[in-house]
Amino acid sequence: MNANEKVILITNDDGITAPGIAMLINSVRHLGKIIVVAPDSPQSGMGHAVTISRPLRLDPVKVFEGIESYSCSGTPADCVKLAVSKVLHKKPDIVVSGINHGSNSSINVLYSGTMSAAVEAAIEGIPAIGFSFCNYSHGADMSSAGAVAAVVTKQLMENPLPSNKLLNVNIPDLPTDQLKGIKICRQAKAKWEEEFSERIDPHGRKYFWLTGKFANYDSGDDTDEAALKAGFVSIVPVQYDLTAHDVVESIKNWEQNLDKI
Amino acid sequence: MNANEKVILITNDDGITAPGIAMLINSVRHLGKIIVVAPDSPQSGMGHAVTISRPLRLDPVKVFEGIESYSCSGTPADCVKLAVSKVLHKKPDIVVSGINHGSNSSINVLYSGTMSAAVEAAIEGIPAIGFSFCNYSHGADMSSAGAVAAVVTKQLMENPLPSNKLLNVNIPDLPTDQLKGIKICRQAKAKWEEEFSERIDPHGRKYFWLTGKFANYDSGDDTDEAALKAGFVSIVPVQYDLTAHDVVESIKNWEQNLDKI
Repeated sequence: MNANEKVILITNDDGITAPGIAMLINSVRHLGKIIVVAPDSPQSGMGHAVTISRPLRLDPVKVFEGIESYSCSGTPADCVKLAVSKVLHKKPDIVVSGINHGSNSSINVLYSGTMSAAVEAAIEGIPAIGFSFCNYSHGADMSSAGAVAAVVTKQLMENPLPSNKLLNVNIPDLPTDQLKGIKICRQAKAKWEEEFSERIDPHGRKYFWLTGKFANYDSGDDTDEAALKAGFVSIVPVQYDLTAHDVVESIKNWEQNLDKI
Repeated sequence: MNANEKVILITNDDGITAPGIAMLINSVRHLGKIIVVAPDSPQSGMGHAVTISRPLRLDPVKVFEGIESYSCSGTPADCVKLAVSKVLHKKPDIVVSGINHGSNSSINVLYSGTMSAAVEAAIEGIPAIGFSFCNYSHGADMSSAGAVAAVVTKQLMENPLPSNKLLNVNIPDLPTDQLKGIKICRQAKAKWEEEFSERIDPHGRKYFWLTGKFANYDSGDDTDEAALKAGFVSIVPVQYDLTAHDVVESIKNWEQNLDKI
């Protein structure tokens, strides 16, 4: 390995055998030395879960020609922690996560294992990007997402963000030549309107499947949803301070009201 | 039920049999009609996980005298979704989550199932609070946390926050009469310094346990960590827009640089 070669850690939440991670590896492998540590099974919807009550397994696997790879029994966030601590024994130069099968725009950033891996890297001070493609099918043609991953990863490696910030990149389900360009956006105000499919199991007991439809309540033209809808790649710079700073001041008077505990 | 009586949905992440949820129920039951929908097993560290690849179970249980209660096979966020959709068939007036066994201050808000339940409620536009007590032991005396929960829940019911904002309340491990008061705070910049305990299983295979120590890098006196250390209850108003708004403008020029995809 060239001493100046950058180390790129790759993970995802769809699992190490998902087509999206193979696309990501092939799209960025010319940019540095690739190490893969990815979940051994799908972890979609895992949010920022970490595994604290079970032991974790980490096994070397041969999945990608010429690439050092490990499968991990934990969550995407666990993969990043284990990769830094037990595989690399140092921080990589960048962590790229994905390419997720399905959008992680808007509110989905909260539920996304793909993004939680990138957030975990950012907490460690490592530049990080989560890539997601707006098509859930594992058979979809993700070549446009691969092209975007190559360019955006290179851009971030050459132009660091302020520390502990990261990128949430979503690619519309379009061929490369139909992409309109890239928009730097904010997270749209949207939510899932939950529905639960109620069913009866073969033993007569009720069970529920989570389902629902995505509802965008944000008419702004500067959101990730607006960009994607117009055929642009959306890039949302992400931070993980959840403090509602504007509210801190407005409820300072509670400190007195609550003195009667 | 009195038509004006407020409906209070209670959940947690330590599971429906944890002492903390019993303490929370008893502390706020005088404030309205309580409905409990909580995980059937511990869900600590689940972050904002939702269950999409498995069916969910929801079973009525008799755990708390005179309180309608359900155990759910899913995550804390699932509990809130199911409670609204399949138990209450409407939004409750408030969701209170906890009392968590262990702190959810600072960066822990990201990993916390207790807080993810409250965030899920806020996404639905429901006032919400997560309560956490800074002692992991299930045998700890949580009566001070119960006293805080009663007062803060009443305060929020009478003084709503701006919509989609919620509260992260942490209570230091002190008896009620030693609490110094309450501070409205911001989330401290801190992280876990991971360590993995590396072990060999009875079959000769390696496994890892996640462990680590909490490292506070924030010397501000307006943080939750500072408040807790000084013996105050910390209240952080929380929002879930992860956009790094300051960075959006500073990387707008990327839109041109990236046009070569």
